[in-house]
Amino acid sequence: MLINPALAHLSPLIGTWRGEGHGEYPTIKSFDYTDEWEFVDVGKPFLLFIERTWNADGAPMHTETGYIRAPSAGTLEIMVAIPTGQAEMGTGSCEVDADRLRLVTDAEILNTPTAKRVDRIVRRYEVVGDELTYVMDMSAVGVGLTLHLTSHLTRQI
Amino acid sequence: MLINPALAHLSPLIGTWRGEGHGEYPTIKSFDYTDEWEFVDVGKPFLLFIERTWNADGAPMHTETGYIRAPSAGTLEIMVAIPTGQAEMGTGSCEVDADRLRLVTDAEILNTPTAKRVDRIVRRYEVVGDELTYVMDMSAVGVGLTLHLTSHLTRQI
Repeated sequence: MLINPALAHLSPLIGTWRGEGHGEYPTIKSFDYTDEWEFVDVGKPFLLFIERTWNADGAPMHTETGYIRAPSAGTLEIMVAIPTGQAEMGTGSCEVDADRLRLVTDAEILNTPTAKRVDRIVRRYEVVGDELTYVMDMSAVGVGLTLHLTSHLTRQI
Repeated sequence: MLINPALAHLSPLIGTWRGEGHGEYPTIKSFDYTDEWEFVDVGKPFLLFIERTWNADGAPMHTETGYIRAPSAGTLEIMVAIPTGQAEMGTGSCEVDADRLRLVTDAEILNTPTAKRVDRIVRRYEVVGDELTYVMDMSAVGVGLTLHLTSHLTRQI
């Protein structure tokens, strides 16, 4: 299947990525995890993505899924369903600089009544060849925008 | 994998469903489609779901993905990512009545800047044995809550 022309500049992101992550936040104990991201071209003008994480014992921890739209070559829109009770909608930018692809999204959040409240999520993805770095800042439970997740992943063949 | 005890009452929904759907809305021409829903137990206290639809020629039309949480036996929470530019968060109820499982969710929506604006989505799922009926009402582009989608699906083995 050919990638949609509107997404051609995002093609370095497509595939499955796996690596190690570190989580931290002022209100919790820091933790490490295995991180996997899949970015899938479904032939439409958006990418589907699924994240899955596991703890050191191989037990599933977190997962989330959503879509990235590229209304123009330099702009992004992101929609994410998060099973801890959040629906995320954000806008962002995309920069292609030689062999480097950089995506940033900044999102507002709707929370279910029983969720731990999250107010804002900023995601940064940087692809250089077969390396992906993912950094996520979050404002949640009354804390301002603060680093929450960092992971370093490599492309899976 | 055993289903999470918090979701046991939703177990009739788990699996892959396929059938025919009809779409309508005051602002568009009515249309028919093939509808597929997957509800997946990932071993966590929520169900993952993915919807995919196709037109009569077999070309992919719509897709969306998200999660259903069941904070209690009678209540639901839903988070959905919709690639037309919506993030959906809603609450709802679940009724088990003899051989009938009935879910209703009523959701608010965040829209990306380039999306056609959707303000509210009400979803109804009814499972009786191997039959699933799905009805979706929507308030969008200035129209009040109005029937948008109806599909009748059967469980795939």
